[in-house]
Amino acid sequence: MQVQESTRYACADLRTNGARLWDSLMRLARIGATEKGGVCRLALTPLDRDARDLFVAWAKALGCTVRVDAIGNLFARRAGLRDDLPPVMTGSHLDTQPTGGKFDGNYGVLAGLEVLRTLDEANLRTVAPLEVAVWTNEEGSRFVPVMMGSGVFVGAFSLGHALEQRDRDGISVSEALSQIGYASDAPFWPHRVGAYFEAHIEQGPVLEANATTIGVVQGALGQRWYDVTVHGMEAHAGPTPMDARRDALLVAAALIAEVNRIAREHAPHGRGTVGWLDVHPNSRNVIPGRVTFTVDLRAADDDALSAMDAALRAACAAAATQAGIGVDVEQVVYFPPQPFDPKLVDAVRDGARALGLTAMDIVSGAGHDAVYLARVAPTAMIFVPCKDGISHNEIEDARPEHLEAGCNVLLRAMLAAAGVAAEGDA
Amino acid sequence: MQVQESTRYACADLRTNGARLWDSLMRLARIGATEKGGVCRLALTPLDRDARDLFVAWAKALGCTVRVDAIGNLFARRAGLRDDLPPVMTGSHLDTQPTGGKFDGNYGVLAGLEVLRTLDEANLRTVAPLEVAVWTNEEGSRFVPVMMGSGVFVGAFSLGHALEQRDRDGISVSEALSQIGYASDAPFWPHRVGAYFEAHIEQGPVLEANATTIGVVQGALGQRWYDVTVHGMEAHAGPTPMDARRDALLVAAALIAEVNRIAREHAPHGRGTVGWLDVHPNSRNVIPGRVTFTVDLRAADDDALSAMDAALRAACAAAATQAGIGVDVEQVVYFPPQPFDPKLVDAVRDGARALGLTAMDIVSGAGHDAVYLARVAPTAMIFVPCKDGISHNEIEDARPEHLEAGCNVLLRAMLAAAGVAAEGDA
Repeated sequence: MQVQESTRYACADLRTNGARLWDSLMRLARIGATEKGGVCRLALTPLDRDARDLFVAWAKALGCTVRVDAIGNLFARRAGLRDDLPPVMTGSHLDTQPTGGKFDGNYGVLAGLEVLRTLDEANLRTVAPLEVAVWTNEEGSRFVPVMMGSGVFVGAFSLGHALEQRDRDGISVSEALSQIGYASDAPFWPHRVGAYFEAHIEQGPVLEANATTIGVVQGALGQRWYDVTVHGMEAHAGPTPMDARRDALLVAAALIAEVNRIAREHAPHGRGTVGWLDVHPNSRNVIPGRVTFTVDLRAADDDALSAMDAALRAACAAAATQAGIGVDVEQVVYFPPQPFDPKLVDAVRDGARALGLTAMDIVSGAGHDAVYLARVAPTAMIFVPCKDGISHNEIEDARPEHLEAGCNVLLRAMLAAAGVAAEGDA
Repeated sequence: MQVQESTRYACADLRTNGARLWDSLMRLARIGATEKGGVCRLALTPLDRDARDLFVAWAKALGCTVRVDAIGNLFARRAGLRDDLPPVMTGSHLDTQPTGGKFDGNYGVLAGLEVLRTLDEANLRTVAPLEVAVWTNEEGSRFVPVMMGSGVFVGAFSLGHALEQRDRDGISVSEALSQIGYASDAPFWPHRVGAYFEAHIEQGPVLEANATTIGVVQGALGQRWYDVTVHGMEAHAGPTPMDARRDALLVAAALIAEVNRIAREHAPHGRGTVGWLDVHPNSRNVIPGRVTFTVDLRAADDDALSAMDAALRAACAAAATQAGIGVDVEQVVYFPPQPFDPKLVDAVRDGARALGLTAMDIVSGAGHDAVYLARVAPTAMIFVPCKDGISHNEIEDARPEHLEAGCNVLLRAMLAAAGVAAEGDA
């Protein structure tokens, strides 16, 4: 659909209300606020219910209808001129990490709400309906898998599988949904999506380092996660000469360097991280007999990711042969690279340009609900800077003017996708 | 003192009883026996008391006097012709690691007892008295510091300091000694030692790899232990480009390789081990913000050990500069290299040669009570092979013929040091 020329000019000066957006973010952040200025609001807890209730109240105050699907996703719908068209959707999540911040997820939801508020104030109606989605359990801190609500929505895994997952106390997703009053008896309710946008803090240092306000997200990196185990020979650190050792940690150290080398060979988007490592027996004067560690490889295209996979396996095999010990490599997660829709990406770039904002192309290194949505609908994301690239941390921070700028880009991109009804149509 | 020529020939054919030694080892190993064939007999527990009681009974059956000093060390004394001379002593320890074996320590004590039994059967008296020592808490598993009894004996630390150390349940060494009936009201009783020998399993792979029965121990490696902390920057593994990272584990991995290189540059006796490592926050998709690890450096002479220390500090400083992060290095333990007495070492070598045993010079990479004793008395050690070089493990194993051979070398070396009374002297 096209924006009608008659309203293109009417919309050109339309701006969201940055102060209202900030106030809403701060109001929401009080639910689960931590002493250090962060938020702890785990999925499907009473705090999550309070946040959902607040969102629902705000949406209903705008005249939206709110539906809940069988995995607890919320959809606040603002009617369009043609409600037979699939909605133009935006959204994100309200759950946080245990030591989370005020913006991760929350910004995407409230930026969507601010778009609706702005249109309401301007008395503007879109051709296609608009929806703001709240996806259940994006963080995965209480229940796995992560991105549960959007994953069910796009069919990445089944509703039944998701509902029977349990937290550490043995409470299932199904039970938790009932406990907070967000279980739905209605049949699972997937629906066509005309376009999906998600605004999010970058969670990385690139925009800040480039003094740029808007990240035009090209797509999400593909990911391969591994568990690697090095089987050496435990021995006394004193009496065992260097040539007689089979030191599992020494081999693991060489492989950590290899993971870094492999990622750098696929610059600029290659990533390689060993984030978790366990030494056995982990005693000061015992040569480590067994080391287990994780590897997280990411790349922008599947050819690169496959090449990195092959390089990792070759490095492990070479290290095993050289040291005369066993190295096991098991892939435990695979997310394919997910390019976003070129037209929607262009709409984001155009919006930033029209608003006079600095913008740059960027990739999403992290997973987001948008990465799943891109499997079933044209999708794009808008990144704004976060302080020092820090997220998943109570000191997570973002500047009001950046959040407002991202929201203005979201407004323009959504209007471009949904079309604005001519004045006579309303 | 010299062995008198008239008895040198009489002693040449004297042999210990390998079967009796083995039987005693197996009898002792029943105290604290584990299902996997090892021994768990922590210092100053009721099991340690049972082992001590058995040793005391065996020693008294030989007519020995047994004394207990204020830290619980036992000394079983067989009178010599001249009891004004300082004793020729041997011994080791009866405590084990939590998952210890049958031979570590126990062999040194029972080899000494077997020497006394052999002399008793042969009705031979030495010029100097002989003593078999049982040193308290060599392993350090329940109470630190390790080698507590011998450390107090030689003045490495004070009796009062040792007595007030507590285990994880808050029980002090002083209380534990009382509980098992081995507290001594007598004043601390150090005494001059004419010579000290200790027979021990090698705890390393060298003798087995060289198909050699007797290790003629030249001395003990010096040790420097460190705690190293790498301060990086915690960040999300996905959105953080490789060039923007300060990955503490990547720097730690490079330093682990450096520790290995430094040790190899001081072959054959240099040792370098990273045995313990802790990653923070240790999460699969978070770049490690802080890594702490231990370094254990060992060398045969202090110049080499100092050079290794300087190389480690230089490597840490270079890594910190290169990565733009902080690396802290703190030395926490220093044991100087401890050469043994050349004449006693020769006596061990001569004994092995006279018995027609394969023998080689070797160093002790591990600490032993003998390493402390060498500070106050001429000292030497006799190593025998252990299977696969494994100790501090329930599968620790040694061959009866090797244990018997080591005991025969001990017998000859002790007789050489103590002198044998001529027949008319007895």
